Amino acid sequence: AGGDASMHGLIGKLRAQPGQRGALAAILLESTTSMPGCLAYVVAEDTEDADALWITEVWDNAQSHQASLQLPAVRDAIARARPLIAGFDSHWITRPLGGVGLAD
Amino acid sequence: AGGDASMHGLIGKLRAQPGQRGALAAILLESTTSMPGCLAYVVAEDTEDADALWITEVWDNAQSHQASLQLPAVRDAIARARPLIAGFDSHWITRPLGGVGLAD
Repeated sequence: AGGDASMHGLIGKLRAQPGQRGALAAILLESTTSMPGCLAYVVAEDTEDADALWITEVWDNAQSHQASLQLPAVRDAIARARPLIAGFDSHWITRPLGGVGLAD
Repeated sequence: AGGDASMHGLIGKLRAQPGQRGALAAILLESTTSMPGCLAYVVAEDTEDADALWITEVWDNAQSHQASLQLPAVRDAIARARPLIAGFDSHWITRPLGGVGLAD
């Protein structure tokens, strides 16, 4: 719901083009350091699939996440990352309740 | 590898017994606040399955994660949580590269 004050979470697994996982991860890491409302944005390699990356995100609310997609740095990163992405394997939306490692 | 210095990540989806998701989340949240080497431990509700919880963890290395399972508070929490868990749907091991929201 629009005014939903609960935190907004995303968990996604995406596949890089062969040999491009490192370059893709670098783009994602460098462009996501200062996004308003972003409490967590972790980029991780899958340990079994050499092309797969996991992105786990926590936002203070859904609106902050939506707004981030309009940030120049994020739009630029998406444009640079797109050719390096072979596919989006899976994607879940969550409602984080709390925990360790949420930037304040 | 034993001496692997890279960060250690876990992403898991588990199902609570019907109506027990809140109680299960409370146990997980209260018992995981001070685990040496834990950089992130986020508990989140699945937004489609009313019984499902997502746990996303980042550790400074695999050894810290292993050691945490011997902490009295964690062993106690596991014992209290077990009867509230109906199943472990999926579980992935990752190698976090970095990002926002990693407790230092």
